[in-house]
Amino acid sequence: MTPKSLRRAVEALASFKIETPSWGYADTGTRFGKFFQDAAAIDTNDKLADAGQVHALTGCCPTVAVHVLWDFVQGEDPKNTAKMARKHGVKIGAVNPNVFQDQEYKWGSFANNDPKIRERAFEHCSYSVDIMKAVNSEYLSLWFGDGTNYPGQGSIRERKANFEQCFKALHKKLGPKQYMLIEYKPFEPAFYQTDVADWGMAYVYSKKAGPRSKILVDIGHHYNATNVEQIVAWLLDEDMFGGLHLNDRRYADDDLTLGSIDPYQIFRVFHEIHFFASDRGKMPKIPYMVDQCHNEKPKVEAMLQTVAMAQDLYAKAAIVDHDALRRAQAKNNVIDAELILKKAFFTDVSPAIAAFRKQNKLPGDPLAEHRRQGYEKKAAADRNRRRKDMGITRGGSFA
Amino acid sequence: MTPKSLRRAVEALASFKIETPSWGYADTGTRFGKFFQDAAAIDTNDKLADAGQVHALTGCCPTVAVHVLWDFVQGEDPKNTAKMARKHGVKIGAVNPNVFQDQEYKWGSFANNDPKIRERAFEHCSYSVDIMKAVNSEYLSLWFGDGTNYPGQGSIRERKANFEQCFKALHKKLGPKQYMLIEYKPFEPAFYQTDVADWGMAYVYSKKAGPRSKILVDIGHHYNATNVEQIVAWLLDEDMFGGLHLNDRRYADDDLTLGSIDPYQIFRVFHEIHFFASDRGKMPKIPYMVDQCHNEKPKVEAMLQTVAMAQDLYAKAAIVDHDALRRAQAKNNVIDAELILKKAFFTDVSPAIAAFRKQNKLPGDPLAEHRRQGYEKKAAADRNRRRKDMGITRGGSFA
Amino acid sequence: MTPKSLRRAVEALASFKIETPSWGYADTGTRFGKFFQDAAAIDTNDKLADAGQVHALTGCCPTVAVHVLWDFVQGEDPKNTAKMARKHGVKIGAVNPNVFQDQEYKWGSFANNDPKIRERAFEHCSYSVDIMKAVNSEYLSLWFGDGTNYPGQGSIRERKANFEQCFKALHKKLGPKQYMLIEYKPFEPAFYQTDVADWGMAYVYSKKAGPRSKILVDIGHHYNATNVEQIVAWLLDEDMFGGLHLNDRRYADDDLTLGSIDPYQIFRVFHEIHFFASDRGKMPKIPYMVDQCHNEKPKVEAMLQTVAMAQDLYAKAAIVDHDALRRAQAKNNVIDAELILKKAFFTDVSPAIAAFRKQNKLPGDPLAEHRRQGYEKKAAADRNRRRKDMGITRGGSFA
Amino acid sequence: MTPKSLRRAVEALASFKIETPSWGYADTGTRFGKFFQDAAAIDTNDKLADAGQVHALTGCCPTVAVHVLWDFVQGEDPKNTAKMARKHGVKIGAVNPNVFQDQEYKWGSFANNDPKIRERAFEHCSYSVDIMKAVNSEYLSLWFGDGTNYPGQGSIRERKANFEQCFKALHKKLGPKQYMLIEYKPFEPAFYQTDVADWGMAYVYSKKAGPRSKILVDIGHHYNATNVEQIVAWLLDEDMFGGLHLNDRRYADDDLTLGSIDPYQIFRVFHEIHFFASDRGKMPKIPYMVDQCHNEKPKVEAMLQTVAMAQDLYAKAAIVDHDALRRAQAKNNVIDAELILKKAFFTDVSPAIAAFRKQNKLPGDPLAEHRRQGYEKKAAADRNRRRKDMGITRGGSFA
Repeated sequence: MTPKSLRRAVEALASFKIETPSWGYADTGTRFGKFFQDAAAIDTNDKLADAGQVHALTGCCPTVAVHVLWDFVQGEDPKNTAKMARKHGVKIGAVNPNVFQDQEYKWGSFANNDPKIRERAFEHCSYSVDIMKAVNSEYLSLWFGDGTNYPGQGSIRERKANFEQCFKALHKKLGPKQYMLIEYKPFEPAFYQTDVADWGMAYVYSKKAGPRSKILVDIGHHYNATNVEQIVAWLLDEDMFGGLHLNDRRYADDDLTLGSIDPYQIFRVFHEIHFFASDRGKMPKIPYMVDQCHNEKPKVEAMLQTVAMAQDLYAKAAIVDHDALRRAQAKNNVIDAELILKKAFFTDVSPAIAAFRKQNKLPGDPLAEHRRQGYEKKAAADRNRRRKDMGITRGGSFA
Repeated sequence: MTPKSLRRAVEALASFKIETPSWGYADTGTRFGKFFQDAAAIDTNDKLADAGQVHALTGCCPTVAVHVLWDFVQGEDPKNTAKMARKHGVKIGAVNPNVFQDQEYKWGSFANNDPKIRERAFEHCSYSVDIMKAVNSEYLSLWFGDGTNYPGQGSIRERKANFEQCFKALHKKLGPKQYMLIEYKPFEPAFYQTDVADWGMAYVYSKKAGPRSKILVDIGHHYNATNVEQIVAWLLDEDMFGGLHLNDRRYADDDLTLGSIDPYQIFRVFHEIHFFASDRGKMPKIPYMVDQCHNEKPKVEAMLQTVAMAQDLYAKAAIVDHDALRRAQAKNNVIDAELILKKAFFTDVSPAIAAFRKQNKLPGDPLAEHRRQGYEKKAAADRNRRRKDMGITRGGSFA
Repeated sequence: MTPKSLRRAVEALASFKIETPSWGYADTGTRFGKFFQDAAAIDTNDKLADAGQVHALTGCCPTVAVHVLWDFVQGEDPKNTAKMARKHGVKIGAVNPNVFQDQEYKWGSFANNDPKIRERAFEHCSYSVDIMKAVNSEYLSLWFGDGTNYPGQGSIRERKANFEQCFKALHKKLGPKQYMLIEYKPFEPAFYQTDVADWGMAYVYSKKAGPRSKILVDIGHHYNATNVEQIVAWLLDEDMFGGLHLNDRRYADDDLTLGSIDPYQIFRVFHEIHFFASDRGKMPKIPYMVDQCHNEKPKVEAMLQTVAMAQDLYAKAAIVDHDALRRAQAKNNVIDAELILKKAFFTDVSPAIAAFRKQNKLPGDPLAEHRRQGYEKKAAADRNRRRKDMGITRGGSFA
Repeated sequence: MTPKSLRRAVEALASFKIETPSWGYADTGTRFGKFFQDAAAIDTNDKLADAGQVHALTGCCPTVAVHVLWDFVQGEDPKNTAKMARKHGVKIGAVNPNVFQDQEYKWGSFANNDPKIRERAFEHCSYSVDIMKAVNSEYLSLWFGDGTNYPGQGSIRERKANFEQCFKALHKKLGPKQYMLIEYKPFEPAFYQTDVADWGMAYVYSKKAGPRSKILVDIGHHYNATNVEQIVAWLLDEDMFGGLHLNDRRYADDDLTLGSIDPYQIFRVFHEIHFFASDRGKMPKIPYMVDQCHNEKPKVEAMLQTVAMAQDLYAKAAIVDHDALRRAQAKNNVIDAELILKKAFFTDVSPAIAAFRKQNKLPGDPLAEHRRQGYEKKAAADRNRRRKDMGITRGGSFA
């Protein structure tokens, strides 16, 4: 790295914060089952403890995305969860309602043709905004499992109208500094049609809902070959980019570790963000949130790996030579333009990462330090004991 | 068919017009080469003659989409082409500028970073609007080959800005009853990024351009598994549906014959249109245009096959029992809802087609009649002779 | 239908048997959760009762595919399950080992790098062959969840070697009239690489295992746009076609109802089978097995719908005019060849289905009869009561 | 790089040869047209001169793949082309018959149902083997455009039988040290079905043809998400890997520059080759051939870029720590296994490239040196003058 690159990369890292998700510390699986881990979190306290461990080691994960259904107790003061977070050195980040899991959502939530279920889903989201206010959260992160499995099953336009109405009403609940982020996904758990299938649909909904509704891009929620960085560039240009869910994929919404399959794609997404900031003279505020399911990897280790990869690719994208790139683009010098990106991508930015860690008094190798501490072993022992006390047996079957 | 179904289907067919494309009568191929046909059209007169033959036999193809570059002579009165069309019993339909073929468009047309090339592309489109006025055409059909092949090659946002500016300016040229239709395509001939990649981008451009800019959906211009009928339903609901390009595909923009690969998908697209009309009490005006490349099939025969398939699937979609469907949907009776669609799809609507043809004094079997007339043989003889006279040899090589 | 077509279709239906899967009667879901049905089967007896109901109404589903882990009790005589089946009017069909669900298979079964786990998986499969012998089953149906989620995770060649060894050993266990069917799947639950990813891999494994190893094609286990009927035609030609899993898909292994998304594709698969039989003068013996997950539809209703669709598409494929098709193909008359397929596909074969049902003294409309009988309501009441008695609560959460 | 890594990388580079294709120096385009370059090669001498320039600058491209139809003159001694190559410092590599371009191949070559056309295609391939003998070439590189565009168009099994027969006969023509490489491709220029669609089909054909028939893997000839490195690992394990066509892709067979879209995938392919060599103690002989169409980039520059990227990724893959990887795999330590690959991928191997270039007395930066020499400008002037003399005008139109 040149001194200039190093400086730019370190500067970029200084303001690069990554939110980790509470559900990423618990056991997850595929529809064929879950492989359980002894050290997986049992409850919200465990999740926040794990998130705290990740932040303590990396210094860049100060907030935790929470799932209202799993991390708050209806009837209790939501501040309890916030306090618990503080105890572990982290804060509550995006609040995620859950309107896909309960049995009443079999036929959808906001799209449901039963107004009572729609009302229930809306109430849950509205309650989630209350939680945001209580815990001082800025982002309501909205993902829906709504959709249909078969042609004819639902009226696409009626479902759209139901969604529009709910989004509009929900926007009214937001405080002046709160944002609702609409996440799109073309497929799964509904297989024929999903009600927020692509960025265009999220855009139309957002524009109708109001100015504090933005679009949340999840890397995995695209068909193969979709140019994700183009969508990000467009949303930035339209001031509609609400956030980025970090993960990777090979075929579907695989929820794999960021950069594990196609690191150059992730780099290009970050590049579009830095390039936009360079053109505008100002880096927009963007919530970066990990959204992955580590079905086999140890949870905290996987999160540390993810954060390291995110910092690496973000720093690489930060040192693209924008002036040279603009010149190559102006001359349609395709090869030079490409090589400018590649040069940054393949630059070893570990000096910048090391400098960031040193400045922040962090361990030089968070993953190694985590292993040295024996955190996982201790967590496994503690949580197994508690499982035993609580009578938790872990089962479940495909059919 | 029940008498009621028959009546509905015949009624639907009465107003179902399909535009055929002038370029569909000429030789086309893949990047690996063209297989030439003796009966392929040499010039615009041939193309219009072929289109006239299709209309004479089917009674539902009164207009022909034209390509400005190929079907008009700069400097000559565009009315000449219109007259030529009338001579063959057809009229000029959508006007298609061509800003992708000439060498100066190597780096794009509306997205080009050279303002002179953008100006040139704009002038051609503007001239196309003049042609529309001269030939009394309602639709300016806009497809662009613009895009980049490699990451870094162009500034996505700058290209977007250039497009926005051109679209806005172009909209100003339109007469009060003229529409510009923006067609999207995610891939080919640009392979990394295209500037109008999906319906969302076409939507954003259209909204900025003005009220007479709408979105043109081409069946083939989607990634695999994209729910095309959902996009159509959305655009109808948003009053942004500008037209439908009829074709089919297996993997990419294969430009195959409508319904040859997935007829049920085409049926579902038509169903969403009929269902919308049923909900609103009025069928919207939708230009249906064939956009296919018959690389092996005899051109006119392929067009007759396409038109017959389009009528068949359109009539099937017209007889879906909307009331029963709404009831099944209201009860989330998925199986019944599906079966209602399937029942219509598998209904033999040939009585309706026969009635339509009889009412319009058309041959009962247009393809058989076309063959009986020996049209192709005569065209081949005539066109081969003319090629010889004109010194046309047909070559070309992949590399 | 012409009398000749009717005769051919009825003949075809007479020998068309469809196996239903025991697990298709139980609750299934996505990784995001299950929506429970009151009438879903609780135990093997329920599953066999439901399968019996389907056979009683359709007359073409005499066998039931069983899952060793769920439908047999280790230590008990497997004949008990066979007796139970007979009680419900059905027989045991393909035997499906399960080496993907237990916790020890976290790192694979046949591909596991721990020889003890491989041995355990092998023992389970070997035990499954014993069951086959006990219940007189002809097919060992082998599907594996083995694979890796990340590049580098496993040695692809070592895993292949482990599989080869297990398949060879397993083949030795087979009786002289027993077949092992190797099913391939490119994706899920492993996301980076699966050890039996495509038909080519299943072919190589089969050839090494022995002559009674064949390939099982599951419609859903292909990437989008894969030409499934071509694979079927190839496997028939190579005498390696071991069976067909019936279902449909839009994007991934969606396990949707047969023909719900792309009925023409299913028709083409059946067509290749009939065309092969026509060329060879003999229909090969092919086990057809439903493999679907009805997450929302009532289980038995969905199965009845599937069977009806299968019969419909199979009968349509049976009446393709092979002689005319061969003539059109010989002349490269693409349009006529296509129209011959389309004509059969769109022929209303309900007279043949009706004749089949009448001949077999079956209700004219199995689904309507099933509803008339109130089977589902009764099953729901009975099973809910039993759940209560057994203390079954149905929960589970994504994370 | 550690000294050990450096040594390994330099060693690996010493034996890494990349064949460039004669057609890669001529103008190519998409079906929508070609953008012509002044410096594009007009004839075989130009192509070989360009290939010579690439080899002179890179030292690792000693051979040129030739296209029989374009690079040899029927009736002349093929040695003339070999001599011409030698004059430019290169040798003839793989010989590529062309049985897709001529008009008689409209309905296929080896799959054609007209035995006369099959014979003609066979004769051309047979003549290509004669050329191989004359020019001392080891590889007959077989790619076919054969396939069908519509269901029903051809008999899949009859076409397969025709192919089998031709491949068998062709194998008989090969000399004892000559190989035929069968290339597969699922799509384009045939859109419904291709006769050598995947590696499984190429494998079955090869096994029937004989021991010197192997499989040629082209990176771009797969559906999205296909695990190409797994196929390479399988073919190596089966001793059926015949060669690798270098390029990249986003959606289809885009023929983009190697590593321009997904460099990590290319690295993984190379990794599987190095890992195999490490397990077997010997690097297999593998022909690496560039197969790309640079529609916009200057031809020679694009080739230099490709070669540099290939060397870079090949060297990175060479320094993967195989022992550490095996240990991580043995312990199912997914994260460490991944990090071992990533570490190599992101290692800056430019010292190794520099050492290789220095050892071979090559310019330190081939692309810069090429530009410094003004090669392209001179070629453009010369070739434009010759075009003028030869009366070459470059046209062509989509329709």
